[in-house]
Amino acid sequence: MAQDTATATRAEAGLDSPHRLIASNRVEGTAVYDRKGDKLGRIECFMTDKVTGQAEHAVMSFGGLFGLGGRHYPIPWDMLEYDPDKSGYVVDLDKEKLEKGPSFAAGEEPPFDRQYDRSVYDYYGVVYTW
Amino acid sequence: MAQDTATATRAEAGLDSPHRLIASNRVEGTAVYDRKGDKLGRIECFMTDKVTGQAEHAVMSFGGLFGLGGRHYPIPWDMLEYDPDKSGYVVDLDKEKLEKGPSFAAGEEPPFDRQYDRSVYDYYGVVYTW
Repeated sequence: MAQDTATATRAEAGLDSPHRLIASNRVEGTAVYDRKGDKLGRIECFMTDKVTGQAEHAVMSFGGLFGLGGRHYPIPWDMLEYDPDKSGYVVDLDKEKLEKGPSFAAGEEPPFDRQYDRSVYDYYGVVYTW
Repeated sequence: MAQDTATATRAEAGLDSPHRLIASNRVEGTAVYDRKGDKLGRIECFMTDKVTGQAEHAVMSFGGLFGLGGRHYPIPWDMLEYDPDKSGYVVDLDKEKLEKGPSFAAGEEPPFDRQYDRSVYDYYGVVYTW
């Protein structure tokens, strides 16, 4: 029954459309908006658990000319809400909070070990289950 | 308790290493082996649910010269078992089963709607929960 409800909700939200899934090599560039509808930045990549296949972070950037020289900002996956009308994600964040958060220079990926992952989740006050 | 056990198992398997996560833009090329340890092919991409962040399929190819002109084979995510020693995936499949399975020409991505997704899961006898 719960599954029927979930299926119905997904259908209403248009999530059973052909565009429900995204290929990992096409994630880059997906827009991220704040609650007001202003564009905050774009997705650089997802950081996915190799075993479970679950995305744990989205890595954002503020874009910039050809994305060069920018900084990358990992945020917990659960903060992202997909908006099919926008074909992008909405987050409950302003730019200031993001700018002061964990970040790294493009091309200098952090270890993404448990300690780092937790520091990201802690900064945004998101509970991790591992 | 269950979570403690899961955490311990993950630690034993070396999955709390810095390489526990993979960036979506680095998925391509990950090796896939059969049970005998022979290389079956490589990952082209993951197909990830935009809402949940869960990978639903891995899309495989048999490689080939620069990966050109090859066919792509989606398989249900749950068939993949990550082997940290191999830095690749192991599947309970032989090449023949894979070759007769759902596939598409590189560059001609199918809709990946529910009907298609189910046909992939059905072919491999994997139960889908949606």
